[in-house]
Amino acid sequence: MTSDVQNVAKALASISDHWQPRRLTSINNYDLKVVKIKGEFVWHTHPDTDELFMVLDGELTIQLRDRDVVLGPNDVFVVPRGVEHCPKAAAEVSALLIEPKGTVNTGDAGGDMTAELQELIL
Amino acid sequence: MTSDVQNVAKALASISDHWQPRRLTSINNYDLKVVKIKGEFVWHTHPDTDELFMVLDGELTIQLRDRDVVLGPNDVFVVPRGVEHCPKAAAEVSALLIEPKGTVNTGDAGGDMTAELQELIL
Repeated sequence: MTSDVQNVAKALASISDHWQPRRLTSINNYDLKVVKIKGEFVWHTHPDTDELFMVLDGELTIQLRDRDVVLGPNDVFVVPRGVEHCPKAAAEVSALLIEPKGTVNTGDAGGDMTAELQELIL
Repeated sequence: MTSDVQNVAKALASISDHWQPRRLTSINNYDLKVVKIKGEFVWHTHPDTDELFMVLDGELTIQLRDRDVVLGPNDVFVVPRGVEHCPKAAAEVSALLIEPKGTVNTGDAGGDMTAELQELIL
């Protein structure tokens, strides 16, 4: 029997790529995802949903058009729906994301960094 | 100007009571809450929603009618909607909760342990 308990640290240890969120679990129609981040993403917007970032390790900058939001470990920030943003990290960051199922990582921007949501392989 | 970045560790440091969830932030119509837990709660069910627990510190047992789910730091467990459960912790636990807005902590059980959702005062 597989366990229905997931461990965030174990999940992160299984990830070696960047900008490829994995689904840890779901609550109703929302996914809790883990992701490793390094470098700069693309500017994009989620027109229909807020997006929650919680940094577990490292320093993540979420660039907004009018300011930078700098997040360290245990910091939580919600990008409101419709707000253009571009995450970047000079060194590797581990983070949790909460989003409705079906939210695409690049939002309305598309392009090469668009990732299919992957399941964890533990 | 107040910051729209919340820190989970700082939020937990501001809490000295048990079974009184505080809203850290919201994503759409969901709340991310922090809570400290000690002792035994009441058996209850949320008929209309799943409930996510993520343990940050300590060991939390979520009693189900057919088994106990034991969670340590970084463990995540989702109690499916309609599943009767009763959390307990011998020593103090710090945890994150994710639930739809308006979810009552005691679900269908009511009683003395029912808590109004509180805002953080930092």
